[in-house]
Amino acid sequence: MPPTRRQDPKDDEAVLSDYYQECSESKAVTSLIDLLQQRHFSRVSKLTSMPSQAEGVIWHPFRQHSIPHNIIAIDSAYGDHFQAYNQESDPSLASSTTTSSSGLAPLAAQPPAKSLLTPLFDASASWWTQGLGHGNPDIALTAAHAAGRYGHVMFAHAVHEPALDISYNLLSTLQNPRLNRVFFTDNGSTGMEVAVKMALRASCQRYGWAKDDGGSPVAILGLKGSYHGDTIGVMNCSEPNIFNEKVDWHQPWGHWFDPPSLLMRHGKWELSIPEDMQSSSIHANDRTVQVFDSLDSIFNFDARQADTARYEEHIKSTLTTLVKDQGKRLGALIMEPLLMGAGGMIFVDPLFQRTLITTIRSNPDLIGTPVDGPEPNCSDSNWTGLPLIADEVFTGLYRLGRASSSSFLSTPAENFSTQSPSAAQSPRLHTPIAPDISVHAKLLTAGLLPLALTAASESIFQTFLSASKSDALLHGHSYTAHPIGCMVGNKALDEYRRMDTEGSWDEFKKPWTSSTSQSTTPALSSASPPTQATPVFSFFPPSLLDTLSHHPKLRGCFALGTVLVLKVASEGSGYNSSATASLQALLLTLLDSEGCGIHSRVLGDVIYFMTSLTTTPEQVERLSKTLLQALDQQ
Amino acid sequence: MPPTRRQDPKDDEAVLSDYYQECSESKAVTSLIDLLQQRHFSRVSKLTSMPSQAEGVIWHPFRQHSIPHNIIAIDSAYGDHFQAYNQESDPSLASSTTTSSSGLAPLAAQPPAKSLLTPLFDASASWWTQGLGHGNPDIALTAAHAAGRYGHVMFAHAVHEPALDISYNLLSTLQNPRLNRVFFTDNGSTGMEVAVKMALRASCQRYGWAKDDGGSPVAILGLKGSYHGDTIGVMNCSEPNIFNEKVDWHQPWGHWFDPPSLLMRHGKWELSIPEDMQSSSIHANDRTVQVFDSLDSIFNFDARQADTARYEEHIKSTLTTLVKDQGKRLGALIMEPLLMGAGGMIFVDPLFQRTLITTIRSNPDLIGTPVDGPEPNCSDSNWTGLPLIADEVFTGLYRLGRASSSSFLSTPAENFSTQSPSAAQSPRLHTPIAPDISVHAKLLTAGLLPLALTAASESIFQTFLSASKSDALLHGHSYTAHPIGCMVGNKALDEYRRMDTEGSWDEFKKPWTSSTSQSTTPALSSASPPTQATPVFSFFPPSLLDTLSHHPKLRGCFALGTVLVLKVASEGSGYNSSATASLQALLLTLLDSEGCGIHSRVLGDVIYFMTSLTTTPEQVERLSKTLLQALDQQ
Repeated sequence: MPPTRRQDPKDDEAVLSDYYQECSESKAVTSLIDLLQQRHFSRVSKLTSMPSQAEGVIWHPFRQHSIPHNIIAIDSAYGDHFQAYNQESDPSLASSTTTSSSGLAPLAAQPPAKSLLTPLFDASASWWTQGLGHGNPDIALTAAHAAGRYGHVMFAHAVHEPALDISYNLLSTLQNPRLNRVFFTDNGSTGMEVAVKMALRASCQRYGWAKDDGGSPVAILGLKGSYHGDTIGVMNCSEPNIFNEKVDWHQPWGHWFDPPSLLMRHGKWELSIPEDMQSSSIHANDRTVQVFDSLDSIFNFDARQADTARYEEHIKSTLTTLVKDQGKRLGALIMEPLLMGAGGMIFVDPLFQRTLITTIRSNPDLIGTPVDGPEPNCSDSNWTGLPLIADEVFTGLYRLGRASSSSFLSTPAENFSTQSPSAAQSPRLHTPIAPDISVHAKLLTAGLLPLALTAASESIFQTFLSASKSDALLHGHSYTAHPIGCMVGNKALDEYRRMDTEGSWDEFKKPWTSSTSQSTTPALSSASPPTQATPVFSFFPPSLLDTLSHHPKLRGCFALGTVLVLKVASEGSGYNSSATASLQALLLTLLDSEGCGIHSRVLGDVIYFMTSLTTTPEQVERLSKTLLQALDQQ
Repeated sequence: MPPTRRQDPKDDEAVLSDYYQECSESKAVTSLIDLLQQRHFSRVSKLTSMPSQAEGVIWHPFRQHSIPHNIIAIDSAYGDHFQAYNQESDPSLASSTTTSSSGLAPLAAQPPAKSLLTPLFDASASWWTQGLGHGNPDIALTAAHAAGRYGHVMFAHAVHEPALDISYNLLSTLQNPRLNRVFFTDNGSTGMEVAVKMALRASCQRYGWAKDDGGSPVAILGLKGSYHGDTIGVMNCSEPNIFNEKVDWHQPWGHWFDPPSLLMRHGKWELSIPEDMQSSSIHANDRTVQVFDSLDSIFNFDARQADTARYEEHIKSTLTTLVKDQGKRLGALIMEPLLMGAGGMIFVDPLFQRTLITTIRSNPDLIGTPVDGPEPNCSDSNWTGLPLIADEVFTGLYRLGRASSSSFLSTPAENFSTQSPSAAQSPRLHTPIAPDISVHAKLLTAGLLPLALTAASESIFQTFLSASKSDALLHGHSYTAHPIGCMVGNKALDEYRRMDTEGSWDEFKKPWTSSTSQSTTPALSSASPPTQATPVFSFFPPSLLDTLSHHPKLRGCFALGTVLVLKVASEGSGYNSSATASLQALLLTLLDSEGCGIHSRVLGDVIYFMTSLTTTPEQVERLSKTLLQALDQQ
C-alpha cells in the first residue's frame, strides 16, 4: 500500500521513493522482471543463433555450402520488408552471444533491440513471388477461411468452389481466346512438366511419332538462356548450362535459338543480334548491335519489317536444317515471353519471339506432315505447326505490368482489335500470337504458398480423350488444387485486376508515356491504337534507367514492369561470377532515410531489383537513391 | 405495435393472428424472406451446378474425361468427413435444377437441405494426406499465424524459425542416426527428384562415372510396382508401367526386382514369391506361395533364415549379372518401405527389402570399385554400396503406425538396441538398415497444404561441397520452405508424436498384441525385445481382416497402420480394371447409422480405406459394418 501523502513535498518524495524502492525489490516485481528478461534474451538468443543453427541442419537451395555466406535470419515480414537479423552488421554480436550463453545479464548491457532487427526491402520479391506484400491481412484471413472450411480435400473426381473460382478467374484474367481448361499442380516446375506432357502428346499424335519407332526422340524448340524449373523433365527443356550440367539424368532434348536481346547503354537501347542472323550494323564481339532510341520503337513491330524478314529467314533455314536435313522431331515451342528469368535476366527481342511463333504457325510443313490428313486451320482452339507453351511463371500475372506477358508479342492494335473500349486495361490476346498452353505460379497465390495452374486449349485437351484410362493425363500431386491455394489465388487475381482496372499504376506509367521518353520514337504506323492500351512501362522510372545506363560500374541495364536489371561491369561473367557480391553486401547495410536496407539477389554478373504490385512511388524513389549511392560508394 | 391484450383468449388469439398476418405481409418481412430465399437458392444452385461447371473448365488429375464419371462436389469438410453433394444420389436434382434456372421458388417446393449434402467418410484420406482431420482449428490457426507473421519469405541464403523448427522436429521424429540435413521442396515428387539428384551424384563421384564417358547411363535399383511421383525424372525411377508408358519423355533407367508380396486369404497370410527366387512351396500361376499364420511371424526375421538365404542368393546373382555381365551402372537403391502405394497397394515382404539393403551394404563390390581408395566403413554417416533412398512419402509419419516405415525392416531388438526404456514409443532406426536419404510429404503438413522434406546424411551432403557454385545442389522452388507449411508441419509432427507417446492408439494396438492373434506365432528368438516396442498393428482390427479374408467377393486383403486394402475378385485386373467401381459407387450411397456414406478410391482391382490418426475406434467400427454390408449387397 502506498504511504499517505505528506504535507512537505520533499518529505513526500522521500517516503514515496522508499516505497518504490521497497516495491521494486519485492519478490513479485523482481521475478516478473526476471521473466521478462528471460523471455527477451531467449528471443534474442534464438534470433542471433539462427544463422549458425541453419549451418548445421539446413541444406540450402542453390547454395555452395563450402563457400562461407552471410545467412540472413528473418524474424517476420510486412509489406515489402523483412524484419531481419544480419549477423555481419550486428555491432552487439559478441555481447549478445555472451548473454545467451551466460543466461541472464543486466538489461543495460544489451544493445537496444532496434539494432538487432533491420527492415530490409525484399528486392527479389522473395524469389519473384510477392505481389500484395508480406503478411497481407486480407490474404492471411482468406487462407484461414479456407483452412477452417476445408483443410485440404480430394480433387480427383471431385470439385470444390475455390478450385472453380480460380479456374474461371485465371482464364478471364489471361484473356487468351485459345485457353479453356485448367490443370492444377504445385509449382512452376511441375506446371511446366504437365505442359510438356500435354504438348508432346499432341504433336506426337498429329505427326504420328511413337517412342520406339526408330525415329529420333521428340524434342522441343526453345531459346538459349531459358529456364523452366528444377525437376529433371523440364531441365531437359533447356540447353546444357550451369544449372543442369551436373545433374546425372539431365538429357537435353531440343534445339535452342540464340535470341537477339536488349540492354540499355548510354541512354540507348542496344539490340544484340547473333552473327548468324546477319546485320549490317556495328560489330561487337561475335554479335552485331542495332540501336533503338526508345522502348516503344522496339515494340513498333510494323516499323521493323527488315528485322522481321531477317528473323523469318533465319528461323526457316534453321528449321529446314533441323527437320529436313537432320531428321529432328520437334514437338513443342516453349518460351518465357519477353524476359528470361533464372537463365540470367535476358530481355529478349519480342519481335524475334513473335516471328518464331508466326513463322511456325504459318509454315507447319517445316515441322512435319499430319498423319490424319491436312493440318487444321489455326483457329481459336486449334494449334498449328507446334503447340506453343508460354512459361509465364515468372513473367505473367502483372510481374511485367500486364496480365499475360504473351501480350507483349502483339502490337497494341492487335491486342485491342477484338475488345470494346470499355473493357479492362489488359488486352485480349491476339489469337495468332496466343499460346496454346500457358503456365502460371509465383504471383498466382499473392506470394503466400505454392500452387501452379497450367491452362490449355480445347484442342490440346482432346488429344487425351479416348476410351482408355491409360490415355488420360496421369498426373496429380497429393495436394492438387488445395483449397487454401485456390482461395488465396482467386483473391490475389481479384486484387491484381482491380488495381489494373482502377489505374493503380498510372503514376508509374506516366513518365513512360510522356513526350520526353518518346521524343525520338517514330510514330506508330498502325492505325491509331486505342487509348486504353497498357503501355510498356516499369515501376522504375525512365530517368533512373537513363542515369544507370551511363554509370561506369555497369555494362547496361533495363526495366520492365516491376523488374529492374543491372549488368555489372566485371572481368568474369556468368553464374560463377562474383562481381555483384560486394554491391549486394553493401546494399544490406547502407540504410536509407527510414533506416531500411535492401535485400537483393544476384545471378552471376546481374543484380536485379523487384517491387511488389503495391509498392509505392515513394518507396521506389528511396530504393533508387540507395542504389545510386551504393554504386557510387562501391 | 402488437395489439393490447384482450380478456377473452379466443378474442386475443384472433387479434394476434391478424397482427401477425399483417406483419408477415409487410414489405420489411417479405423482402427479408426473399433475400434469405435468394441466398439459399443461390447457394444451392452454386452447389448443384459445380459438377457440370467442373466438366467444362477443369482438367482433372488421373481422369479419362471421355469416360463419364460422377463428380462429387465438396461443400466443406470437418474431421474425417466431407460435406458433399453427390448428384447421382440427389432425389431433388430435377426440382433444384428447375429452381436454379427459374429463380425464386416457394421454400416448400425445396427438399430439406439435409438431402443435398451428405457427410462422406474421406476413406482415401484425400489422397493419403490427412492426419488430424479436415478443418482442424489448431492447424488452421497455426496457418493463419504464419500467414500473418511472414506470408512467404526468401529461403535462399536466409532462414526463419519455422524452417529450423520443422527440420529439427523431423530429424528427431525419424530417429534415423544417419540423417542430419534437410532440403525443402513442395511435394513428394519434387522431394524424390532431389533425393535422386543427391544419390546419383554421390555414387557417380565414388565410382568415377561421368555422363559422357561412354559407359552406360547410371541407373537405379528398385522394385516392380513402385511409384515415386509424377514428374518425369522420378517417373524414370519406375519400370515401364501404365502410369508412364504414354509419357513421351519417359525413359526408365534402372533394374526392378519383382518383390515377394503378402496378402491375407482365408485367415492366413500368403507370401507370393516370384519363381526365379525358387521355393518348394505350393505352386500358383508363375509364383510360389508360402503361408504364415500371423503378421508377427512375417516380421520375425530371425526365424526366417531360409528365406533370407534364398533372397540373398537371388539378389547377389542378379546384381552380378547386371553389373559384371551387362556392365550396368547402379547409382541408388530406392524403395517404399513395406507398402508400395500408387503402384497398386502392394504389401512387400519386409524381409526382402531388408535383405536387399544388407546384401548391398555388405557387398559393395557387387556395385563397383571406388576410385578414391577403399569403400568407407558403413558408419552412422557413410553410405556403402549404394545410397539408400527411402520414399516414405506415403508410408512414413505414422501412416503405417510408426514415425518411419523404415523401422519395419528391423527386428524389435535392433530397433530398440540403442534406446533407453524411457524413450518414446517409436524406435530409433537400426543403423545397418537406416536409409541415407529419406523423403517425406503428405502427412507432413497435417493434410493442409503442400510441402516436402528430403533428409540426407552428412556423407551425401559432402558430395556437393567444392570451391565451385556449379557443384552445389542447384534446385529450389520459389516457395521453398514457405513458413505456413513449415509452421503447420512442425505443429503436425508435435501432435503425431504426442499421440504416439501418450498411447493414443493403444486401443487399436490391443487386439493385434493379444494372445489370440499371436497364437501360432513362434516366440521371438531375439533376446527379449523391450516392452515399449510398437507392434505391427492396424487401426482396422484383425477380426475384420479375418472376416474379409474369407469373403467370396475378395481375392485377399491386408491392413497396416491406418490402411486397409481389399483386392476385389474380378475377371480383368490392373489399373484399367473396373471391378471395384460398383463397390465404390455403392459405398457413396449406403449410409450408416449416422447417415454417413464412404468416399473411397480404387486402384484397378484394389479398393482401399484409410483413416486419419485421430479417427476413433467407433468410427472404424461403423466403417467396417458399412463395408461388410456393401460387400454382401453387391
